[in-house]
Amino acid sequence: MTFVWLNGQVCVAAQAHVSLADRGLTLGDGLFETIRVKNGNLLHLDKHMQRLQGGSAVLALPVPSGEEVAQAAKALLAATGLQNGSARLTVTRGVGPRGLAPPQDVRPTVFMTVAAGTARVASVSVMTSRLVRRDEQSPLSRIKSLNYLPNILARQEAVRAGYEDALLLNVQGRVAETTVSTVVVQEEERFITPSVAEGALPGIARSVLLRAGVMTEESVDLSRLQQAKALYLVNSLGVRVVSLLDGQWMEPCASGLRRLCTLLDVAQGGVAGARKGSVSSHGRT
Amino acid sequence: MTFVWLNGQVCVAAQAHVSLADRGLTLGDGLFETIRVKNGNLLHLDKHMQRLQGGSAVLALPVPSGEEVAQAAKALLAATGLQNGSARLTVTRGVGPRGLAPPQDVRPTVFMTVAAGTARVASVSVMTSRLVRRDEQSPLSRIKSLNYLPNILARQEAVRAGYEDALLLNVQGRVAETTVSTVVVQEEERFITPSVAEGALPGIARSVLLRAGVMTEESVDLSRLQQAKALYLVNSLGVRVVSLLDGQWMEPCASGLRRLCTLLDVAQGGVAGARKGSVSSHGRT
Repeated sequence: MTFVWLNGQVCVAAQAHVSLADRGLTLGDGLFETIRVKNGNLLHLDKHMQRLQGGSAVLALPVPSGEEVAQAAKALLAATGLQNGSARLTVTRGVGPRGLAPPQDVRPTVFMTVAAGTARVASVSVMTSRLVRRDEQSPLSRIKSLNYLPNILARQEAVRAGYEDALLLNVQGRVAETTVSTVVVQEEERFITPSVAEGALPGIARSVLLRAGVMTEESVDLSRLQQAKALYLVNSLGVRVVSLLDGQWMEPCASGLRRLCTLLDVAQGGVAGARKGSVSSHGRT
Repeated sequence: MTFVWLNGQVCVAAQAHVSLADRGLTLGDGLFETIRVKNGNLLHLDKHMQRLQGGSAVLALPVPSGEEVAQAAKALLAATGLQNGSARLTVTRGVGPRGLAPPQDVRPTVFMTVAAGTARVASVSVMTSRLVRRDEQSPLSRIKSLNYLPNILARQEAVRAGYEDALLLNVQGRVAETTVSTVVVQEEERFITPSVAEGALPGIARSVLLRAGVMTEESVDLSRLQQAKALYLVNSLGVRVVSLLDGQWMEPCASGLRRLCTLLDVAQGGVAGARKGSVSSHGRT
């Protein structure tokens, strides 16, 4: 039996639903966070709540407090017995009438679901999307909203071409992020990443690396990526080493990867030694 | 009692739901159409289906046929007794696991809801959004997807400033559309509208006017709007006369409005004579 948490209580997943008039469903009007669960605890909940509250301010959408989210997670993790994996918190603007105007009395729909898994390292092939670009000026580029179609489109484009993820450039043609990850560029022993002003989502793993003082924000164009010592994609759920970028094979850097994994608390597994030969296919995993 | 149509059958609205794992809800992964209902019939269903199929091609998302939609509408209109108003058809990619990758076996969620109303003329105050711009290069600008947050944000921005709707410019700074309408610019006796290549959604009322040969596509900048004889906002559900644009009052043109209303089969009501004095407030209606 699978459980979810919905509007204040743990429910059996098969019996948990939202209305057809929920604005999350009809208009993508809402926010979410995907939070890593390790040994039964939510990691970096404070940072996730900070980002959620940023989204709340942009959308003028009330969100639960960190305390409420922690309570919800506690109840749901107890019910499911989940120790390691992820918890996804979703907040929508709730039920509304036809049209864009929010109802006078907004009652957000809040739910949490969990999935098992272990944060680990993988290798990934990436192509630059030609279809989709991030608008670095949009307030939506800075929040984690339910409007994920640009990323889905770019991912489909990559998969059609035999790649696993898509790199998104901004309107200026500079690197922003991938469909689900922050881009970390290793140059010699330094890590750099595009700033939020370049259209990068303010990722949580990204924030951990920036606060640890091991990564700096700089603008990155495609040629800089191609000349990097190594490239990594990081998010709350793990670290991926880019093995192929737009047809160009890339070498991982064992020491750089080890450093990222330590900082992000990710088990390095057997991918540290990924080489051309070990990537048997750049198709979808 | 309110009814909806969901995945093949008419249901009581209060008992119709979607799963928390529906990708329409979790990622905005879907499409919709808002179709005018007049005297118990769907207007321009062929055009709506054509646009829906365009969206289907972009998202690689299966959608029902026109025949299936017509059957659904017939059953729902019979149950509700609705004669005049609108029917909204929504198609999502259905339930999926965590992450962006669609499931192997996609089973779309398809539902239709209706709302009563009569297509009519109104006056509207419009401000140019400073927060949101349309990416005229994005395939998403050409389809009617569930990712409506850019439009919601722009609408909120307008409402905060005391206006009713927001004009969206494209990345080049030229006019694209408003949050829910095609912009029709009257210059002398001609109507013009920005092309889809400028970031305009291929609206149905827009297509009616273009096919009738009374409107041509041209690129429009803000100064052209300001110098227009009159401005109108059209969509499937009606015609609005712009009375105020960014603080500048605009005069309606009775003959131009009459022509649009006839072509779009909209009752002109009492707004033809809207003048400065008759627009008592540019706040939200």
